Amino acid sequence: MATKMHLGVTCLVISIVCSAALEQGRSSWTGKLLVVPMDGSHWTGVKAVVEEMGRRGHTVIVVIPEISMRLGPGKHYITKTFPITYGQDLINQMIGEHVHELTEPEHVTSMVAHLRKIINCVTSTTESLFSNQELIDFLREKNFDAVLTDPALPVGAILAYNLSVPAVYMLRGMPCGLDAAATACPDPPSYVPRFYTRNSDRMTFGERVVNVFVSMLEPLICKVTFWPFKEITFNFLQRDVSLIEILSTGAVWLMRYDFSLEFPKPLMPNMQLIGEINCEIRNPLNKEVEEFVKGSGEHGIVVFSLGSLVSSMPKEKAAIFFKAFSMIPQRVLWRYTGEIPDDVPENVKLMKWLPQNDLLGHPKAKAFITHGGTHGIYEGICHGVPMVMLPLFGDQGDNVHRVATRGVGVVLSIHDITAETLVDALNTVINDSSYKQRMEKLSAIHNDRPMQPLDLAVYWTEFVMRHKGADHLRPAAHDLNWLQYHSLDVIGFLLFIVLIITLATFKCCALCWRRCCRKSQKRKED
Amino acid sequence: MATKMHLGVTCLVISIVCSAALEQGRSSWTGKLLVVPMDGSHWTGVKAVVEEMGRRGHTVIVVIPEISMRLGPGKHYITKTFPITYGQDLINQMIGEHVHELTEPEHVTSMVAHLRKIINCVTSTTESLFSNQELIDFLREKNFDAVLTDPALPVGAILAYNLSVPAVYMLRGMPCGLDAAATACPDPPSYVPRFYTRNSDRMTFGERVVNVFVSMLEPLICKVTFWPFKEITFNFLQRDVSLIEILSTGAVWLMRYDFSLEFPKPLMPNMQLIGEINCEIRNPLNKEVEEFVKGSGEHGIVVFSLGSLVSSMPKEKAAIFFKAFSMIPQRVLWRYTGEIPDDVPENVKLMKWLPQNDLLGHPKAKAFITHGGTHGIYEGICHGVPMVMLPLFGDQGDNVHRVATRGVGVVLSIHDITAETLVDALNTVINDSSYKQRMEKLSAIHNDRPMQPLDLAVYWTEFVMRHKGADHLRPAAHDLNWLQYHSLDVIGFLLFIVLIITLATFKCCALCWRRCCRKSQKRKED
Repeated sequence: MATKMHLGVTCLVISIVCSAALEQGRSSWTGKLLVVPMDGSHWTGVKAVVEEMGRRGHTVIVVIPEISMRLGPGKHYITKTFPITYGQDLINQMIGEHVHELTEPEHVTSMVAHLRKIINCVTSTTESLFSNQELIDFLREKNFDAVLTDPALPVGAILAYNLSVPAVYMLRGMPCGLDAAATACPDPPSYVPRFYTRNSDRMTFGERVVNVFVSMLEPLICKVTFWPFKEITFNFLQRDVSLIEILSTGAVWLMRYDFSLEFPKPLMPNMQLIGEINCEIRNPLNKEVEEFVKGSGEHGIVVFSLGSLVSSMPKEKAAIFFKAFSMIPQRVLWRYTGEIPDDVPENVKLMKWLPQNDLLGHPKAKAFITHGGTHGIYEGICHGVPMVMLPLFGDQGDNVHRVATRGVGVVLSIHDITAETLVDALNTVINDSSYKQRMEKLSAIHNDRPMQPLDLAVYWTEFVMRHKGADHLRPAAHDLNWLQYHSLDVIGFLLFIVLIITLATFKCCALCWRRCCRKSQKRKED
Repeated sequence: MATKMHLGVTCLVISIVCSAALEQGRSSWTGKLLVVPMDGSHWTGVKAVVEEMGRRGHTVIVVIPEISMRLGPGKHYITKTFPITYGQDLINQMIGEHVHELTEPEHVTSMVAHLRKIINCVTSTTESLFSNQELIDFLREKNFDAVLTDPALPVGAILAYNLSVPAVYMLRGMPCGLDAAATACPDPPSYVPRFYTRNSDRMTFGERVVNVFVSMLEPLICKVTFWPFKEITFNFLQRDVSLIEILSTGAVWLMRYDFSLEFPKPLMPNMQLIGEINCEIRNPLNKEVEEFVKGSGEHGIVVFSLGSLVSSMPKEKAAIFFKAFSMIPQRVLWRYTGEIPDDVPENVKLMKWLPQNDLLGHPKAKAFITHGGTHGIYEGICHGVPMVMLPLFGDQGDNVHRVATRGVGVVLSIHDITAETLVDALNTVINDSSYKQRMEKLSAIHNDRPMQPLDLAVYWTEFVMRHKGADHLRPAAHDLNWLQYHSLDVIGFLLFIVLIITLATFKCCALCWRRCCRKSQKRKED
């Protein structure tokens, strides 16, 4: 066994040395990549690709606004910042609104108001970028081989279109099914659940009615959501090009999901399923945290985070969690920056930043309390940790529903939560062994892949750079209008032919009949 | 440069030693694979996977009839043969009919007669296998982890269904779109050309009419083609299960195509594009052939093969080729077992078996004369050799059309061919540099893949064995009937609701109107 391990380590070291040496030889080909990232958790996956592309010797330029939540410089890429018209206070205010939602359910009016604020902020950023002629000229002169961007906010996609540079999109999905429309990907509402409906792939008749109805509304929702970009796009491109047309030029779509979580559905050739990119990027825990985790003994630990946007909560809400944690034997590591009460239970460690993936990968991790963001959910699946989920907003409701459908997690409402329901849920996912069993099976499927997500994402980005696009993956469906795509013109024509033939046959028969009748009448008259 | 090469070779050697040693360590997990192959060229790709699975330490049992065209034993797998009711003469006769088609175009009647002969042969083989209770019991007792089979003839698929073992399908495609139906894969006839239509993905209105019409006929064609299997299946399973139902249980579909040749179209999660598996499996040429090839000088060589089934041709037809080859400066290597005339040109080497892939991979290869079989076409693309194509039967017409659409080959008819047209075609693809340029671009795209085809095929076969299937990739569409899948029941319901609301609104308006009228009438009367 020891020999086998020794052999393994020796081979690994040799392989790394060889790879590095060969890589150096191979790196004679390097390209230029422009990155226009989205802020928040969207940056996480893109950043991993950007870092790796830089490490491989490509020139990577990341264009970001002067002020942002999480965007910033890195070791392996160059950042180009551009001035914007708003300040840090607006960003703080928007984050604060998320915390507010912990106490009160999000009403449609407040949701719309919040969404409007985000859209205003984003359109303002986009206008600042597009009107920065000096920066645009600089980017044009660089002659990039590809643009990497998250098209959920289409600023990068519009810029790539303007610069005539092939685009690589990296995304979780787009609101209102715009990704399906822009890739010409069939998306039957009979078994592909729509965003925010919380439907699964197996729907009752009533659920299917809702799903079909939402799918019919999608074009309208898209129009309303991306309305502000219409004018910006026109001003920037100096001609009227629809958003779908711009997005449909994307060479490769790197989808941040896979079918360990998502329900199986049709794909197009230029869609590559990357899944969760960060799961494999792991670091050892620092000494203090490692000791706290190890001290949990046989009971293990519970990891608790509500994502990068929500790190604090109102005192009364926090009290529920503190109370619940005092009632369980596990130790809890909680990302919490709110007011700290005097009587924090001994088994709770509050941290300003949680090495979430490293903690979930620790053998002592027994449960994960999460808001249901895609990164967290996939990290939980990757490491096989059952979950208690408290969805807050966006796609989180859909995500947690998918996890619950697979029987590897329990959903609670952050608004109605009590210490007892939380303890019950934790005990269920920790002590009911069926949760762990199902999770281990799901985890095994998730982790069994022909290529690591980061390698796959980098491979396809480099592919687009090497071949100046991926035209051979672009379906001819993009050249057809709605009638043609559904062959309605052909069906109409075939029906017309059938009608003509039927009428002609009928006429012939009638004629023959009449002649026969006339003859027999004549005979009778004779 | 020399240092870099030396480093590369050293690393490669170490890497192979390490891989082998680690592989040995990893091979503690091995499974049992049952293989039910199809004969002819279909065996080529499956055999490569079978050999590799055996090499990796899996127990691989290949079930084949006592007599066949190309099926046979190998180093890394066990063969189990079963007796059949026909002899070698039937197989020879069927091969002979292919040669006959070189002189006369295939008429519908002869095509149907030929097809009937094949179907009779196949159903007889299937019946012999299914009625061989001893062999079936043996296979059942083996408790296989997976069945690998080409479902174009569904004997392996039906056997897997009967044994309740997950199936991995490896195929080029199925006649009458059965693969799309069985995977629930959307297949819009507006831009996905149907087999045998020779349409591309960009069709005129007339071509779309034909394509839609053929797609409408497909279910009927399927029914007729696979009719003989209905009874065999019922007798074997002792219940009525449709072929689509059986095929739809396939865990993973390894498709022997990719989008360097095929037109982009929708895919399903359990479809994996393998492309051509043999291109990377290369051996050095033997000394005699190597010398003949090297002696071609700057003009290079032309590789000529009409596939595994057609190695000879009538004297008069062969004379055309001999004459044409005497008119070109290239040397020609021709797989030919027919009558050899006295005046074979000096630049022609006739061979009973051609190392086709190794020859195409030689830097001296200038052109490839092929019948347009999938293996040959992909080998040509892989090595970047422009083609002159002479389609004979089956999917070859579609294949060569795809190659011609990409401007990397010229199509000729074997029936109308003359020495002049052949020389013209060869000169075009060899001397018109645009053919070579386009082919090099296509070849670069074809060869740029994240994982080698054989590794990918083996990976997915092992995946199915490890996880006892791939249920997470099976779309819920399989549980819906036609009406539900297309949401026609929901649309009907929504239309009904709209009708009710319209009627109710109309009634209300009418009522209000009548009341208003009555009041104003009353007022007038007052």
